[in-house]
Amino acid sequence: MGRIITVGRQFGSGGRELGRRLAELIGAEYYDKEIITEIAKHTSLSEEYVKNLIECKPHNLYPITIGKSIAYVGDYQLMQQQSVYSAQNAIIKDLASKSDCVIVGRCADYILRDQNPFRIFVYAEMDSRIKRCMSRIESGEKFSEKEIKRHIKEIDKGRAKYYEYYTGKEWGDMENYDLCINTTNSVIKDIVPAIARIFNK
Amino acid sequence: MGRIITVGRQFGSGGRELGRRLAELIGAEYYDKEIITEIAKHTSLSEEYVKNLIECKPHNLYPITIGKSIAYVGDYQLMQQQSVYSAQNAIIKDLASKSDCVIVGRCADYILRDQNPFRIFVYAEMDSRIKRCMSRIESGEKFSEKEIKRHIKEIDKGRAKYYEYYTGKEWGDMENYDLCINTTNSVIKDIVPAIARIFNK
Repeated sequence: MGRIITVGRQFGSGGRELGRRLAELIGAEYYDKEIITEIAKHTSLSEEYVKNLIECKPHNLYPITIGKSIAYVGDYQLMQQQSVYSAQNAIIKDLASKSDCVIVGRCADYILRDQNPFRIFVYAEMDSRIKRCMSRIESGEKFSEKEIKRHIKEIDKGRAKYYEYYTGKEWGDMENYDLCINTTNSVIKDIVPAIARIFNK
Repeated sequence: MGRIITVGRQFGSGGRELGRRLAELIGAEYYDKEIITEIAKHTSLSEEYVKNLIECKPHNLYPITIGKSIAYVGDYQLMQQQSVYSAQNAIIKDLASKSDCVIVGRCADYILRDQNPFRIFVYAEMDSRIKRCMSRIESGEKFSEKEIKRHIKEIDKGRAKYYEYYTGKEWGDMENYDLCINTTNSVIKDIVPAIARIFNK
């Protein structure tokens, strides 16, 4: 079992960049969208559909960790969510068993909890997140700050619900992480070496 | 204006040790109990009394930041709390203006917000905090784990109330900090150099 780093992140906080740079620096595999591709393969669902199932909030039920049976719900979408989660579970465990890796999102901190991953959460002030999103918009696309803010909030709401549903824990609660880093006043590439030193001590 | 680092911390998480080692490493002044001593001097109250006023939860009122006037409350203890807070405010600003410094607790992150301090919050799992407290008990003293846990919770409840009262913000909410570090699985002296690199980038 190699070194496993998981990265949870608020939308627009730069968590993906941080994870990617961290993986490059320590010579680990980096998994983000690759997991969606693998899940799609294993479930015969389209990548887009899998992405939507994962990013959007799950069916409005009690957290799965409470142990509520789904056998009698008879909801097709819910069954698909369960199968996607099962596939994700198996794929993440398989990837993590192969080599050092950085895994962004996907409840990996929880799925791999028995392997003691180093769990990072990346966040930032809303203005900073809006600015980061604005800088990524391709020319020709037009979004107002208000629209971007609404989009950020929607994505994070989905992530929070998804995380809570599958882990029974609160997404973004510092108790669930080893290091929470606010990127508002930081240039990500500058802080990555220091972060690596915290878990490579 | 030098570099200012503030350290908020859960009781028993090792925040004080982390702050002290950080100050040593970067050659900054370290302020913790010294602030209590200074406040006592300025208010003619005993150090013990000042400490109790600060560590215990303040009078059960709305957060001061809501702007509620205290002029008509006529509560002697409340007036003392206000004068202690005012003295603390002035002392912390004065200390921070003199040199690089690390200040533990005392709402320093909020008091110095206009100086853009690097704001750290240190926390740990309850078992780890109990263990750390147990290791510090002097021989001859006898406390059960249950008693220590109750003590930890009481101290943190006081800190949370105090922080909320004077800042209008939630103590331990990651949004109020630049870096939140969980010391459960860390040896503090090993992670301090990496933390210093995050803000000394």
